[in-house]
Amino acid sequence: MRKLNDLQTPYLAVDLEIFEKNLETMKSIRPGSSLRPHVKAFKSTDIAAILKQAGYSGFCCATIKELEGLAANGLGDDLLLANETLNASRLRSLVDHGVEIIVAVDSTETIDAAKDGGIRNVLIDVNVGLPRCGCDLNEVEILSGYARRKGLNIKGVMGYEGHLMFTPDRADRKRGVAEAMQVLQEAHSITGGDIISAGGTGTFDLNELATEIQAGSFLFMDTRYSTVGLPFEESLTIVSTVISVERDRKRAVCDAGVKSFATDYGKPKLEDGIIEFCSDEHSTILPTEQRGDLAFQVGDLIHLRVPHVDPTIAKHSRLACSQEGYIYGDWKVDLRGW
Amino acid sequence: MRKLNDLQTPYLAVDLEIFEKNLETMKSIRPGSSLRPHVKAFKSTDIAAILKQAGYSGFCCATIKELEGLAANGLGDDLLLANETLNASRLRSLVDHGVEIIVAVDSTETIDAAKDGGIRNVLIDVNVGLPRCGCDLNEVEILSGYARRKGLNIKGVMGYEGHLMFTPDRADRKRGVAEAMQVLQEAHSITGGDIISAGGTGTFDLNELATEIQAGSFLFMDTRYSTVGLPFEESLTIVSTVISVERDRKRAVCDAGVKSFATDYGKPKLEDGIIEFCSDEHSTILPTEQRGDLAFQVGDLIHLRVPHVDPTIAKHSRLACSQEGYIYGDWKVDLRGW
Repeated sequence: MRKLNDLQTPYLAVDLEIFEKNLETMKSIRPGSSLRPHVKAFKSTDIAAILKQAGYSGFCCATIKELEGLAANGLGDDLLLANETLNASRLRSLVDHGVEIIVAVDSTETIDAAKDGGIRNVLIDVNVGLPRCGCDLNEVEILSGYARRKGLNIKGVMGYEGHLMFTPDRADRKRGVAEAMQVLQEAHSITGGDIISAGGTGTFDLNELATEIQAGSFLFMDTRYSTVGLPFEESLTIVSTVISVERDRKRAVCDAGVKSFATDYGKPKLEDGIIEFCSDEHSTILPTEQRGDLAFQVGDLIHLRVPHVDPTIAKHSRLACSQEGYIYGDWKVDLRGW
Repeated sequence: MRKLNDLQTPYLAVDLEIFEKNLETMKSIRPGSSLRPHVKAFKSTDIAAILKQAGYSGFCCATIKELEGLAANGLGDDLLLANETLNASRLRSLVDHGVEIIVAVDSTETIDAAKDGGIRNVLIDVNVGLPRCGCDLNEVEILSGYARRKGLNIKGVMGYEGHLMFTPDRADRKRGVAEAMQVLQEAHSITGGDIISAGGTGTFDLNELATEIQAGSFLFMDTRYSTVGLPFEESLTIVSTVISVERDRKRAVCDAGVKSFATDYGKPKLEDGIIEFCSDEHSTILPTEQRGDLAFQVGDLIHLRVPHVDPTIAKHSRLACSQEGYIYGDWKVDLRGW
C-alpha cells in the first residue's frame, strides 16, 4: 500500500472518511432530486459516479466540457448548464443522442443561442442579489414569452444567492435567503415549471423554496466556510514537502505555490505555521506566534488546508484518496478546460 | 483561416507579432548562453523549441515534470532544476540517458538527495534577499565542502533577486541588484565554477554579475510589469465572451474567471471596463469612470490582460497563436503538473 510520501508533491489528497461523512450528511438532509450536485466543484466523472450511486442523478455544470464529459461517461440522465452560453450549438450532438439537457438563459441572445443549438429545455435565470448573470425580475415575463414563441420548454427558474454563502450568522443568512427567494418565487409564478434551482453549500438547509440545491463544495469544504457553522468538515488538503529551512530557522519553504492552489479566498492554512507569502511553486512559512519556534525540518510532509476548493482542484489532474496516512487510489479530474 | 470567435472561450491568445518582437529584443541584449529561459513561465515544449531555434539551448526549470518533458522532446542539452528537491531520484533515468542536468541545492538534505538520485552537477543556491530558499552566505563553504566530499561537481552558484523584479525605479532596481549580487559574488568566490545563475525579466539588463539570466515572462509580460519600464510588450490576453448584461446596463458579465486566470497579482485589465469581482467562471465588469456607459453587448468578444502570466498559462492546455484577428495555430502547454 502506498503512503502519502510515496507520491510526488505537491498533490491533492482527499480524506475518504471525511468525504464519505460529508456525503452521508448531505444525503440525510437533501437526498435524491432535492440536490443537484455542482460538478464545477470537482470536475471529475469518478466523483460524479460516486454521487450517482448515492442517489444523485441530476448534475449541475458550469461549462459545456463538464456536460460533455458527464454524458460520455453515462452520467447524462439530467444535466443543467447553470451558466449562460452563446455557444449552445456545441450541445446539439448530445441532445441528438438523447442526453437530457437544460440550459440557463437570461437574455434574448442566450435564448436564441439555445434554440439555434437544438436545446429544448431552459430555466430562466433570475438575479436574486448577486450581481453576476440572471435577468431582472421585470424581464422574466418578456423573456419567458420570447422563449415560448421560440418553441422552448421553460422548466422553471434558477437564481443563485451566492452573495449569502459566507454570511457568518445563520439567522442573518436565513433572512437573506428568504428575501432572495421571494424574488425567485415571483419569477416562478410567471414562468411556472417544476424546477426552482438555487442555493449552494452555505444555504443548502436554509433555502426552503428551491426544489433543488446546487451545491458541490460540501464534499471538501473551503477553509472560508469554517466560520459559517455548517455540518461538513474539510476533507481536502494539499500535500507538500518542506524543501528548505533558513539557517536561523526563522522560515521554512515548501514546494506548493499558486500553481497548485487558488488564493482568491486567501492563503492556505496549516498546523504549526503561517504562510508568509506564496510564489508560483513555493510558499514561505513562518512559525506561529504561539509556538515561536519553527516546527519543520527539510523533507517533512505538510498538509495545507484549501481556502477555495473549486479553482484549486481545477489545477490538478488527479486527487489522491487517502486514509490514515495511506493512499487507496485516486480520482481523475477529467473535466478541466472548456 | 479561423478567427478569434471561432474558438470556445475562455482561451489564451498570444499575439505572434508582439511575442516575436519580445524575443528579438531579448536576443539583441541577452543572446545565446547569456539567457537561460525559464520554462516555468510557459510550460510548453513548443515554445521551448522556438527558443532553441533562437539560440537558447539551456533551459531553467521549476519542476521535474518540466525537465522530463523537455528531455523527451529533444530539448535536454542543458537543463537546470532551479528549485530544491528531495525527489532527485526521479531524474536518474534522464541522467543515465545522457541528459545534462544541474540541480540547485541549499542544504545537506538536498545535496544527499541529488547524490542519491545520480545527479553529478549542482549549483549552490544562495539567499540574496528574497526569503525563499537559498542558503545563507555563511553556509556556502560548508555546503560546498559537503557536496564535493559526496563527489558532486559544483558548477557555480545561483541566487534569485526576486524581491527586486517590480521595483519601479530603474536606478533603485539597479542598486538593489548590485547589492544582492555582491552576496552572490562572495558565494561564487568560495565555490568557483563557470555559472552564476540569477535574474529575471525585471532585472535582465541590470544584472552585471550573472553569467546567465533566468527569465521567462518577457515573452508575454505580466500587466504588473507595466510600471517597471521594460522594453517588452504584453503579448498574452484571455479571450472571453460577454454572456450577460444587466437590464439597466450597469454591469456586464464575461465567461472568464479564476479558473482561467490567476489573481495573485490582482484582477485582469481590459479596455473600456473595470473588473468588479471574479468568480470561478465569470468576471463582473463595470464601465470605466471616464466612459460612464457600459461598452459591451451580449456576445461581444473581449480581451483581458493578464496580471501574472505564469500561473495563468498553467490553467490552460493550449495557447492560440493570433495575429490581426486570425488564429494561426496553437502551442500546447504540455508541461503542467509535477
